[in-house]
Amino acid sequence: MTNNHDLRVGVGFDAHRFIDADDPRAAEPMHLACLLWPGPGIQGDSDGDVVVHALIDALLSAADLGDIGSYFGVGADSQGAGRTGRSMLQEIVAYLDDHGAYAINASVCIVGNRPKFSARRREAQQALSSIMGCSVTVTATTTDGMGFTGKGEGIAAIANCLVELR
Amino acid sequence: MTNNHDLRVGVGFDAHRFIDADDPRAAEPMHLACLLWPGPGIQGDSDGDVVVHALIDALLSAADLGDIGSYFGVGADSQGAGRTGRSMLQEIVAYLDDHGAYAINASVCIVGNRPKFSARRREAQQALSSIMGCSVTVTATTTDGMGFTGKGEGIAAIANCLVELR
Amino acid sequence: MTNNHDLRVGVGFDAHRFIDADDPRAAEPMHLACLLWPGPGIQGDSDGDVVVHALIDALLSAADLGDIGSYFGVGADSQGAGRTGRSMLQEIVAYLDDHGAYAINASVCIVGNRPKFSARRREAQQALSSIMGCSVTVTATTTDGMGFTGKGEGIAAIANCLVELR
Repeated sequence: MTNNHDLRVGVGFDAHRFIDADDPRAAEPMHLACLLWPGPGIQGDSDGDVVVHALIDALLSAADLGDIGSYFGVGADSQGAGRTGRSMLQEIVAYLDDHGAYAINASVCIVGNRPKFSARRREAQQALSSIMGCSVTVTATTTDGMGFTGKGEGIAAIANCLVELR
Repeated sequence: MTNNHDLRVGVGFDAHRFIDADDPRAAEPMHLACLLWPGPGIQGDSDGDVVVHALIDALLSAADLGDIGSYFGVGADSQGAGRTGRSMLQEIVAYLDDHGAYAINASVCIVGNRPKFSARRREAQQALSSIMGCSVTVTATTTDGMGFTGKGEGIAAIANCLVELR
Repeated sequence: MTNNHDLRVGVGFDAHRFIDADDPRAAEPMHLACLLWPGPGIQGDSDGDVVVHALIDALLSAADLGDIGSYFGVGADSQGAGRTGRSMLQEIVAYLDDHGAYAINASVCIVGNRPKFSARRREAQQALSSIMGCSVTVTATTTDGMGFTGKGEGIAAIANCLVELR
Protein backbone atom coordinates (compact mmCIF):
# COMPACT_ATOMS: atom_id res chain seq x y z
CA MET A 1 0.00 0.00 0.00
CA THR A 2 1.37 3.35 -1.01
CA ASN A 3 0.84 6.70 0.64
CA ASN A 4 -0.80 9.80 -0.86
CA HIS A 5 2.17 11.83 0.29
CA ASP A 6 4.34 9.97 -2.23
CA LEU A 7 2.12 11.17 -5.11
CA ARG A 8 3.02 14.10 -7.36
CA VAL A 9 1.14 15.76 -10.22
CA GLY A 10 3.02 17.40 -13.10
CA VAL A 11 2.02 19.67 -15.97
CA GLY A 12 3.91 20.34 -19.20
CA PHE A 13 3.22 22.43 -22.31
CA ASP A 14 4.86 22.70 -25.71
CA ALA A 15 4.17 24.38 -29.05
CA HIS A 16 6.04 24.25 -32.36
CA ARG A 17 5.57 25.70 -35.83
CA PHE A 18 4.58 23.62 -38.82
CA ILE A 19 7.20 23.48 -41.59
CA ASP A 20 6.18 25.75 -44.50
CA ALA A 21 4.77 23.93 -47.54
CA ASP A 22 7.54 25.39 -49.77
CA ASP A 23 10.34 24.31 -47.40
CA PRO A 24 12.44 21.35 -48.68
CA ARG A 25 11.71 19.52 -45.41
CA ALA A 26 7.96 19.69 -46.14
CA ALA A 27 8.18 16.36 -47.94
CA GLU A 28 9.32 14.61 -44.76
CA PRO A 29 6.73 13.09 -42.43
CA MET A 30 5.41 14.75 -39.28
CA HIS A 31 6.46 13.24 -35.95
CA LEU A 32 3.69 13.33 -33.36
CA ALA A 33 2.96 11.10 -30.37
CA CYS A 34 5.77 8.72 -31.48
CA LEU A 35 4.04 8.06 -34.82
CA LEU A 36 4.75 9.28 -38.36
CA TRP A 37 2.05 11.31 -40.13
CA PRO A 38 1.82 12.94 -43.58
CA GLY A 39 3.92 16.14 -43.79
CA PRO A 40 4.58 19.00 -43.75
CA GLY A 41 5.89 18.21 -40.31
CA ILE A 42 6.77 20.19 -37.21
CA GLN A 43 9.86 22.40 -36.81
CA GLY A 44 12.31 21.69 -34.03
CA ASP A 45 15.91 20.84 -33.25
CA SER A 46 14.71 17.35 -32.40
CA ASP A 47 11.81 15.78 -34.35
CA GLY A 48 9.40 18.44 -33.02
CA ASP A 49 7.10 15.94 -31.28
CA VAL A 50 5.11 18.32 -29.05
CA VAL A 51 3.24 15.44 -27.37
CA VAL A 52 6.52 13.92 -26.19
CA HIS A 53 8.01 17.29 -25.23
CA ALA A 54 4.99 18.24 -23.11
CA LEU A 55 5.02 14.76 -21.53
CA ILE A 56 8.73 15.04 -20.67
CA ASP A 57 8.21 18.41 -18.98
CA ALA A 58 5.26 17.04 -16.99
CA LEU A 59 7.28 14.01 -15.87
CA LEU A 60 10.42 15.97 -14.94
CA SER A 61 8.30 18.55 -13.13
CA ALA A 62 6.38 15.94 -11.12
CA ALA A 63 9.64 14.24 -10.14
CA ASP A 64 11.43 17.55 -9.38
CA LEU A 65 14.15 16.79 -11.95
CA GLY A 66 14.24 20.03 -13.98
CA ASP A 67 12.76 20.36 -17.47
CA ILE A 68 13.44 19.28 -21.04
CA GLY A 69 15.80 22.23 -21.60
CA SER A 70 17.86 21.59 -18.47
CA TYR A 71 18.09 17.87 -19.27
CA PHE A 72 18.78 17.88 -23.02
CA GLY A 73 19.99 21.48 -23.49
CA VAL A 74 18.52 23.93 -25.99
CA GLY A 75 19.26 24.58 -29.67
CA ALA A 76 21.03 22.87 -32.55
CA ASP A 77 23.92 21.70 -30.32
CA SER A 78 21.68 20.18 -27.65
CA GLN A 79 21.56 16.49 -26.70
CA GLY A 80 18.04 16.46 -28.13
CA ALA A 81 19.09 17.69 -31.59
CA GLY A 82 18.31 15.10 -34.25
CA ARG A 83 16.69 12.80 -31.66
CA THR A 84 13.32 11.15 -32.02
CA GLY A 85 10.66 11.71 -29.40
CA ARG A 86 10.69 7.96 -28.71
CA SER A 87 14.38 7.97 -27.86
CA MET A 88 14.08 11.10 -25.70
CA LEU A 89 11.07 9.75 -23.79
CA GLN A 90 12.78 6.39 -23.19
CA GLU A 91 15.76 8.19 -21.69
CA ILE A 92 13.55 10.32 -19.43
CA VAL A 93 11.61 7.32 -18.14
CA ALA A 94 14.93 5.65 -17.25
CA TYR A 95 16.12 8.88 -15.60
CA LEU A 96 13.00 9.03 -13.43
CA ASP A 97 13.43 5.35 -12.56
CA ASP A 98 17.03 6.06 -11.44
CA HIS A 99 15.59 8.68 -9.09
CA GLY A 100 12.82 6.49 -7.66
CA ALA A 101 10.01 8.17 -9.60
CA TYR A 102 7.38 6.04 -11.33
CA ALA A 103 4.58 7.32 -13.56
CA ILE A 104 1.10 6.02 -12.68
CA ASN A 105 -0.53 7.58 -15.76
CA ALA A 106 -0.29 10.50 -18.15
CA SER A 107 -2.90 12.38 -20.17
CA VAL A 108 -2.11 14.67 -23.11
CA CYS A 109 -4.31 17.06 -25.07
CA ILE A 110 -3.22 18.05 -28.61
CA VAL A 111 -4.46 21.44 -29.89
CA GLY A 112 -4.18 21.88 -33.65
CA ASN A 113 -5.88 21.62 -37.05
CA ARG A 114 -3.94 18.57 -38.20
CA PRO A 115 -3.20 15.70 -38.32
CA LYS A 116 -6.57 14.00 -38.04
CA PHE A 117 -5.61 12.29 -34.81
CA SER A 118 -8.61 10.19 -33.84
CA ALA A 119 -8.19 7.46 -36.45
CA ARG A 120 -4.79 6.60 -34.94
CA ARG A 121 -5.41 7.41 -31.26
CA ARG A 122 -5.22 3.79 -30.19
CA GLU A 123 -1.94 3.27 -32.05
CA ALA A 124 -0.40 6.44 -30.56
CA GLN A 125 -1.54 5.54 -27.05
CA GLN A 126 -0.06 2.06 -27.39
CA ALA A 127 3.29 3.47 -28.57
CA LEU A 128 3.45 5.99 -25.70
CA SER A 129 2.15 3.58 -23.05
CA SER A 130 4.68 0.97 -24.10
CA ILE A 131 7.56 3.43 -23.69
CA MET A 132 6.25 4.85 -20.41
CA GLY A 133 5.20 1.54 -18.83
CA CYS A 134 1.82 2.98 -17.80
CA SER A 135 -1.42 4.26 -19.30
CA VAL A 136 -0.85 7.28 -21.58
CA THR A 137 -3.98 8.70 -23.21
CA VAL A 138 -4.24 11.42 -25.85
CA THR A 139 -7.16 13.63 -26.89
CA ALA A 140 -7.19 16.16 -29.72
CA THR A 141 -9.13 19.34 -30.31
CA THR A 142 -9.14 22.49 -32.45
CA THR A 143 -9.70 26.18 -31.71
CA ASP A 144 -12.31 27.09 -34.38
CA GLY A 145 -9.78 28.98 -36.51
CA MET A 146 -8.66 31.16 -33.59
CA GLY A 147 -5.11 31.78 -32.37
CA PHE A 148 -1.92 30.31 -33.79
CA THR A 149 -3.24 26.77 -33.71
CA GLY A 150 -6.50 27.78 -35.40
CA LYS A 151 -4.68 29.66 -38.16
CA GLY A 152 -2.59 26.58 -38.84
CA GLU A 153 0.73 28.19 -37.85
CA GLY A 154 1.60 25.43 -35.42
CA ILE A 155 0.52 22.80 -32.95
CA ALA A 156 0.47 22.68 -29.15
CA ALA A 157 0.11 20.04 -26.44
CA ILE A 158 -0.71 20.13 -22.72
CA ALA A 159 0.33 17.11 -20.65
CA ASN A 160 -0.55 16.02 -17.14
CA CYS A 161 0.89 13.11 -15.22
CA LEU A 162 0.60 11.39 -11.88
CA VAL A 163 3.91 10.15 -10.49
CA GLU A 164 4.74 8.09 -7.41
CA LEU A 165 8.00 8.55 -5.50
CA ARG A 166 9.46 5.45 -3.87
CA MET B 1 -9.12 1.70 1.36
CA THR B 2 -8.16 2.35 -2.21
CA ASN B 3 -4.76 2.16 -3.87
CA ASN B 4 -2.83 4.95 -5.54
CA HIS B 5 -2.31 2.70 -8.54
CA ASP B 6 -6.04 2.92 -9.24
CA LEU B 7 -5.82 6.73 -9.56
CA ARG B 8 -5.68 8.54 -12.90
CA VAL B 9 -5.32 12.23 -13.79
CA GLY B 10 -6.86 13.63 -16.96
CA VAL B 11 -6.54 16.92 -18.83
CA GLY B 12 -8.92 18.41 -21.41
CA PHE B 13 -9.02 21.64 -23.39
CA ASP B 14 -11.63 23.32 -25.56
CA ALA B 15 -12.13 26.65 -27.31
CA HIS B 16 -15.05 28.02 -29.32
CA ARG B 17 -15.88 31.29 -31.08
CA PHE B 18 -18.45 33.72 -29.79
CA ILE B 19 -21.45 34.22 -32.09
CA ASP B 20 -21.17 37.55 -33.96
CA ALA B 21 -23.38 40.35 -32.63
CA ASP B 22 -25.12 40.67 -36.04
CA ASP B 23 -25.84 36.93 -36.29
CA PRO B 24 -29.55 36.01 -35.80
CA ARG B 25 -28.49 33.55 -33.07
CA ALA B 26 -26.89 36.41 -31.08
CA ALA B 27 -30.21 36.96 -29.29
CA GLU B 28 -30.07 33.45 -27.82
CA PRO B 29 -28.42 32.91 -24.43
CA MET B 30 -24.86 31.66 -23.93
CA HIS B 31 -24.44 28.14 -22.55
CA LEU B 32 -21.50 27.85 -20.16
CA ALA B 33 -20.86 25.53 -17.22
CA CYS B 34 -24.43 24.17 -17.54
CA LEU B 35 -25.93 27.63 -16.93
CA LEU B 36 -27.53 30.17 -19.27
CA TRP B 37 -25.91 33.61 -19.59
CA PRO B 38 -26.73 36.74 -21.62
CA GLY B 39 -25.84 36.33 -25.33
CA PRO B 40 -24.28 36.51 -27.81
CA GLY B 41 -23.47 32.90 -27.06
CA ILE B 42 -20.84 30.42 -28.17
CA GLN B 43 -20.72 28.72 -31.60
CA GLY B 44 -20.81 24.94 -31.81
CA ASP B 45 -22.72 21.99 -33.20
CA SER B 46 -23.88 21.32 -29.65
CA ASP B 47 -24.55 24.22 -27.27
CA GLY B 48 -20.86 25.22 -27.35
CA ASP B 49 -20.33 24.76 -23.60
CA VAL B 50 -16.50 24.77 -23.46
CA VAL B 51 -16.46 23.99 -19.73
CA VAL B 52 -18.40 20.78 -20.30
CA HIS B 53 -16.41 19.87 -23.42
CA ALA B 54 -13.06 20.29 -21.64
CA LEU B 55 -14.42 18.31 -18.66
CA ILE B 56 -15.59 15.47 -20.92
CA ASP B 57 -12.18 15.21 -22.59
CA ALA B 58 -10.44 15.19 -19.19
CA LEU B 59 -12.78 12.45 -17.89
CA LEU B 60 -12.54 10.26 -21.01
CA SER B 61 -8.76 10.70 -21.09
CA ALA B 62 -8.33 9.78 -17.41
CA ALA B 63 -10.50 6.68 -17.91
CA ASP B 64 -8.82 5.72 -21.22
CA LEU B 65 -12.14 5.88 -23.07
CA GLY B 66 -11.28 8.09 -26.09
CA ASP B 67 -12.32 11.71 -26.41
CA ILE B 68 -15.43 13.80 -27.04
CA GLY B 69 -15.01 13.43 -30.82
CA SER B 70 -14.67 9.65 -30.73
CA TYR B 71 -17.65 9.32 -28.38
CA PHE B 72 -20.15 11.77 -29.89
CA GLY B 73 -18.71 12.17 -33.41
CA VAL B 74 -17.83 15.50 -35.01
CA GLY B 75 -19.91 18.01 -36.98
CA ALA B 76 -23.56 18.77 -37.63
CA ASP B 77 -24.46 15.06 -37.94
CA SER B 78 -22.77 14.05 -34.68
CA GLN B 79 -24.55 12.60 -31.64
CA GLY B 80 -23.65 15.84 -29.85
CA ALA B 81 -25.39 18.11 -32.39
CA GLY B 82 -28.19 20.07 -30.75
CA ARG B 83 -27.37 18.58 -27.35
CA THR B 84 -26.95 20.53 -24.14
CA GLY B 85 -23.75 20.26 -22.15
CA ARG B 86 -25.78 18.90 -19.24
CA SER B 87 -27.12 16.02 -21.29
CA MET B 88 -23.71 15.22 -22.78
CA LEU B 89 -21.98 15.29 -19.38
CA GLN B 90 -24.65 13.08 -17.81
CA GLU B 91 -24.12 10.51 -20.56
CA ILE B 92 -20.33 10.57 -20.11
CA VAL B 93 -20.56 10.12 -16.33
CA ALA B 94 -22.78 7.07 -16.91
CA TYR B 95 -20.35 5.77 -19.55
CA LEU B 96 -17.43 6.03 -17.10
CA ASP B 97 -19.53 4.32 -14.43
CA ASP B 98 -20.20 1.44 -16.86
CA HIS B 99 -16.44 1.06 -17.22
CA GLY B 100 -15.66 1.19 -13.48
CA ALA B 101 -14.29 4.73 -13.53
CA TYR B 102 -15.36 7.19 -10.84
CA ALA B 103 -14.42 10.88 -10.67
CA ILE B 104 -13.01 12.02 -7.31
CA ASN B 105 -12.97 15.69 -8.32
CA ALA B 106 -12.58 18.03 -11.29
CA SER B 107 -11.21 21.55 -11.63
CA VAL B 108 -11.82 23.81 -14.64
CA CYS B 109 -10.31 27.17 -15.59
CA ILE B 110 -12.26 29.43 -17.99
CA VAL B 111 -10.20 31.89 -20.07
CA GLY B 112 -12.22 34.71 -21.63
CA ASN B 113 -13.50 38.28 -21.36
CA ARG B 114 -17.09 37.34 -20.65
CA PRO B 115 -19.40 36.36 -19.04
CA LYS B 116 -18.65 37.81 -15.60
CA PHE B 117 -18.37 34.40 -14.06
CA SER B 118 -17.66 35.01 -10.38
CA ALA B 119 -21.15 36.16 -9.38
CA ARG B 120 -22.53 32.75 -10.42
CA ARG B 121 -19.58 30.49 -9.59
CA ARG B 122 -21.40 28.77 -6.75
CA GLU B 123 -24.44 28.10 -8.94
CA ALA B 124 -22.29 26.72 -11.78
CA GLN B 125 -20.28 24.53 -9.43
CA GLN B 126 -23.48 23.13 -7.89
CA ALA B 127 -24.90 22.31 -11.34
CA LEU B 128 -21.70 20.56 -12.47
CA SER B 129 -21.09 18.80 -9.13
CA SER B 130 -24.65 17.51 -9.08
CA ILE B 131 -24.26 15.98 -12.56
CA MET B 132 -20.81 14.56 -11.84
CA GLY B 133 -21.50 13.28 -8.31
CA CYS B 134 -18.30 14.86 -6.99
CA SER B 135 -16.71 18.25 -6.36
CA VAL B 136 -16.36 20.29 -9.56
CA THR B 137 -14.81 23.75 -9.13
CA VAL B 138 -14.45 26.51 -11.71
CA THR B 139 -12.16 29.54 -11.83
CA ALA B 140 -12.14 32.28 -14.48
CA THR B 141 -9.45 34.58 -15.78
CA THR B 142 -8.65 36.92 -18.67
CA THR B 143 -5.56 37.50 -20.83
CA ASP B 144 -5.20 41.31 -20.62
CA GLY B 145 -6.46 41.83 -24.19
CA MET B 146 -3.93 39.36 -25.64
CA GLY B 147 -4.60 36.42 -27.93
CA PHE B 148 -7.99 35.25 -29.23
CA THR B 149 -9.56 35.23 -25.80
CA GLY B 150 -8.25 38.72 -25.00
CA LYS B 151 -9.53 40.13 -28.30
CA GLY B 152 -12.96 38.71 -27.52
CA GLU B 153 -13.02 36.30 -30.48
CA GLY B 154 -13.84 33.34 -28.30
CA ILE B 155 -13.57 31.51 -25.00
CA ALA B 156 -11.43 28.61 -23.80
CA ALA B 157 -11.39 26.17 -20.89
CA ILE B 158 -8.78 23.85 -19.39
CA ALA B 159 -10.05 20.98 -17.24
CA ASN B 160 -8.29 18.60 -14.88
CA CYS B 161 -9.78 15.63 -13.11
CA LEU B 162 -8.82 12.87 -10.72
CA VAL B 163 -10.48 9.54 -11.46
CA GLU B 164 -10.44 6.24 -9.60
CA LEU B 165 -10.70 2.90 -11.40
CA ARG B 166 -12.47 0.09 -9.57
CA MET C 1 -2.68 6.52 6.17
CA THR C 2 -4.74 8.86 4.05
CA ASN C 3 -7.51 8.02 1.65
CA ASN C 4 -7.63 8.71 -2.08
CA HIS C 5 -11.07 10.22 -1.61
CA ASP C 6 -9.46 13.06 0.35
CA LEU C 7 -7.29 14.00 -2.67
CA ARG C 8 -8.12 16.86 -5.04
CA VAL C 9 -6.43 18.10 -8.21
CA GLY C 10 -6.58 21.77 -9.19
CA VAL C 11 -5.69 23.71 -12.33
CA GLY C 12 -5.03 27.44 -12.67
CA PHE C 13 -4.03 29.73 -15.54
CA ASP C 14 -2.91 33.33 -15.76
CA ALA C 15 -1.51 35.69 -18.39
CA HIS C 16 -0.32 39.28 -18.17
CA ARG C 17 1.20 41.85 -20.54
CA PHE C 18 4.79 42.94 -20.35
CA ILE C 19 5.28 46.63 -19.53
CA ASP C 20 6.23 48.61 -22.67
CA ALA C 21 9.90 49.53 -22.97
CA ASP C 22 9.00 53.24 -23.12
CA ASP C 23 6.80 53.09 -19.99
CA PRO C 24 8.34 54.75 -16.89
CA ARG C 25 7.79 51.48 -14.98
CA ALA C 26 10.01 49.64 -17.48
CA ALA C 27 13.05 50.40 -15.31
CA GLU C 28 11.56 48.41 -12.41
CA PRO C 29 12.34 44.70 -12.08
CA MET C 30 10.04 41.89 -13.22
CA HIS C 31 8.36 39.83 -10.51
CA LEU C 32 8.07 36.16 -11.44
CA ALA C 33 7.95 33.01 -9.31
CA CYS C 34 8.66 35.12 -6.19
CA LEU C 35 12.01 36.32 -7.62
CA LEU C 36 13.08 39.63 -9.14
CA TRP C 37 14.33 39.62 -12.76
CA PRO C 38 15.58 42.34 -15.12
CA GLY C 39 12.73 44.54 -16.42
CA PRO C 40 10.65 45.55 -18.21
CA GLY C 41 8.34 43.71 -15.88
CA ILE C 42 4.78 42.44 -16.01
CA GLN C 43 1.66 44.63 -15.81
CA GLY C 44 -0.87 44.03 -13.06
CA ASP C 45 -2.62 45.61 -10.10
CA SER C 46 -0.43 43.45 -7.88
CA ASP C 47 3.17 42.66 -8.91
CA GLY C 48 1.92 40.70 -11.96
CA ASP C 49 3.51 37.41 -10.88
CA VAL C 50 1.69 35.00 -13.22
CA VAL C 51 3.32 31.93 -11.61
CA VAL C 52 1.88 32.86 -8.22
CA HIS C 53 -1.51 33.84 -9.66
CA ALA C 54 -1.88 30.54 -11.54
CA LEU C 55 -0.76 28.67 -8.42
CA ILE C 56 -3.32 30.49 -6.25
CA ASP C 57 -6.15 29.65 -8.64
CA ALA C 58 -5.06 25.98 -8.74
CA LEU C 59 -4.93 25.82 -4.92
CA LEU C 60 -8.26 27.59 -4.35
CA SER C 61 -9.89 25.44 -7.04
CA ALA C 62 -8.59 22.17 -5.58
CA ALA C 63 -9.80 23.21 -2.11
CA ASP C 64 -13.17 24.52 -3.38
CA LEU C 65 -12.48 27.98 -1.98
CA GLY C 66 -13.23 30.24 -4.99
CA ASP C 67 -10.54 31.89 -7.09
CA ILE C 68 -8.01 34.72 -6.87
CA GLY C 69 -10.62 37.29 -7.94
CA SER C 70 -13.19 36.21 -5.36
CA TYR C 71 -10.57 36.12 -2.62
CA PHE C 72 -8.60 39.33 -3.28
CA GLY C 73 -11.08 41.23 -5.46
CA VAL C 74 -10.31 42.62 -8.91
CA GLY C 75 -8.80 45.94 -10.01
CA ALA C 76 -6.85 48.81 -8.49
CA ASP C 77 -8.96 48.79 -5.30
CA SER C 78 -8.59 45.07 -4.68
CA GLN C 79 -6.88 43.50 -1.66
CA GLY C 80 -4.21 42.27 -4.07
CA ALA C 81 -3.32 45.76 -5.38
CA GLY C 82 0.27 46.64 -4.61
CA ARG C 83 0.86 43.21 -3.06
CA THR C 84 3.77 40.93 -3.85
CA GLY C 85 3.15 37.42 -5.04
CA ARG C 86 4.97 36.12 -1.97
CA SER C 87 2.59 37.89 0.39
CA MET C 88 -0.49 36.78 -1.59
CA LEU C 89 0.66 33.15 -1.73
CA GLN C 90 1.47 33.10 2.00
CA GLU C 91 -2.05 34.32 2.77
CA ILE C 92 -3.64 31.69 0.50
CA VAL C 93 -1.65 28.84 2.05
CA ALA C 94 -2.85 29.98 5.49
CA TYR C 95 -6.42 30.23 4.18
CA LEU C 96 -6.29 26.66 2.88
CA ASP C 97 -4.82 25.52 6.20
CA ASP C 98 -7.75 27.17 8.03
CA HIS C 99 -10.07 25.08 5.87
CA GLY C 100 -8.24 21.78 6.36
CA ALA C 101 -6.63 21.72 2.91
CA TYR C 102 -2.96 20.85 2.54
CA ALA C 103 -0.95 20.94 -0.70
CA ILE C 104 1.02 17.77 -1.46
CA ASN C 105 2.79 19.31 -4.46
CA ALA C 106 2.39 21.84 -7.25
CA SER C 107 3.79 22.03 -10.78
CA VAL C 108 3.82 25.19 -12.91
CA CYS C 109 4.68 25.72 -16.56
CA ILE C 110 5.73 29.23 -17.68
CA VAL C 111 5.09 30.10 -21.36
CA GLY C 112 7.02 33.13 -22.61
CA ASN C 113 10.12 34.47 -24.36
CA ARG C 114 11.72 35.91 -21.24
CA PRO C 115 13.16 35.85 -18.65
CA LYS C 116 15.71 33.08 -19.22
CA PHE C 117 14.26 30.99 -16.44
CA SER C 118 16.43 27.88 -16.28
CA ALA C 119 19.49 29.47 -14.67
CA ARG C 120 17.39 30.38 -11.62
CA ARG C 121 14.92 27.47 -11.56
CA ARG C 122 16.35 26.02 -8.36
CA GLU C 123 16.19 29.39 -6.62
CA ALA C 124 12.59 29.98 -7.73
CA GLN C 125 11.52 26.48 -6.70
CA GLN C 126 13.10 26.95 -3.27
CA ALA C 127 11.30 30.26 -2.76
CA LEU C 128 7.92 28.81 -3.79
CA SER C 129 8.38 25.52 -1.93
CA SER C 130 9.36 27.36 1.24
CA ILE C 131 6.17 29.45 1.12
CA MET C 132 3.94 26.50 0.21
CA GLY C 133 5.50 23.96 2.58
CA CYS C 134 5.67 21.33 -0.17
CA SER C 135 7.44 20.61 -3.46
CA VAL C 136 6.73 23.29 -6.08
CA THR C 137 8.44 22.77 -9.43
CA VAL C 138 8.56 25.12 -12.42
CA THR C 139 9.31 24.47 -16.08
CA ALA C 140 9.55 27.07 -18.85
CA THR C 141 8.94 26.93 -22.59
CA THR C 142 8.38 29.17 -25.61
CA THR C 143 5.97 29.07 -28.54
CA ASP C 144 8.36 29.52 -31.50
CA GLY C 145 7.29 33.12 -32.12
CA MET C 146 3.58 32.17 -32.29
CA GLY C 147 0.68 33.71 -30.38
CA PHE C 148 0.87 36.51 -27.80
CA THR C 149 3.62 34.82 -25.82
CA GLY C 150 5.69 34.16 -28.96
CA LYS C 151 5.35 37.77 -30.15
CA GLY C 152 6.59 38.95 -26.76
CA GLU C 153 3.35 40.73 -25.80
CA GLY C 154 3.09 38.93 -22.51
CA ILE C 155 3.69 35.84 -20.40
CA ALA C 156 1.44 33.01 -19.25
CA ALA C 157 1.52 30.23 -16.68
CA ILE C 158 -0.42 26.99 -16.17
CA ALA C 159 -0.39 25.50 -12.67
CA ASN C 160 -1.46 22.13 -11.34
CA CYS C 161 -1.60 21.02 -7.74
CA LEU C 162 -2.49 18.03 -5.64
CA VAL C 163 -4.25 18.87 -2.37
CA GLU C 164 -5.32 16.72 0.55
CA LEU C 165 -8.41 17.52 2.62
CA ARG C 166 -8.29 16.64 6.31
